[in-house]
Amino acid sequence: MYRAEVFVSLKPVVNDPEGITIRSGLHALGFTKVQEVRSGKYLVLTVDEADEASARSAVEEMARKLLSNAVIEDFRFELHQVAERTAVESR
Amino acid sequence: MYRAEVFVSLKPVVNDPEGITIRSGLHALGFTKVQEVRSGKYLVLTVDEADEASARSAVEEMARKLLSNAVIEDFRFELHQVAERTAVESR
Repeated sequence: MYRAEVFVSLKPVVNDPEGITIRSGLHALGFTKVQEVRSGKYLVLTVDEADEASARSAVEEMARKLLSNAVIEDFRFELHQVAERTAVESR
Repeated sequence: MYRAEVFVSLKPVVNDPEGITIRSGLHALGFTKVQEVRSGKYLVLTVDEADEASARSAVEEMARKLLSNAVIEDFRFELHQVAERTAVESR
């Protein structure tokens, strides 16, 4: 059993209105040292694969096919092995 | 200059319809070994603070005040020092 943390972010050349809005909000709250905010998605998947290699290739394929949009987004992910029982409960 | 990666996730007890929808989509694509998907936000901030301690306390306060909703969300973040010029360009 593996837990995959997938980070999906907009490519650097893509406009990010959500990030700009968050930066404005932070500036309005007095955090004027914030120069840039980029927004993205953080997905935590629990995958019932027996070994790390197959978990890695499955998550890679999921990220390419569904979790990210290759035209405007990049992704990366981290894999952590988890015990069977605590996998769902721990997060 | 610091780059902060902020991970905002729903608390484990909070329902996550987006995560459930993503899991359904993955199952429909044949990824039937996915047991759970939890969705969250991934924010990358570039902060013009001189030292790590002040960057850390600023980002902590931003996350508490604006980036997350303490009632339903948890957050954590990682700080990385970056060079002045490449900070905005590198991501």
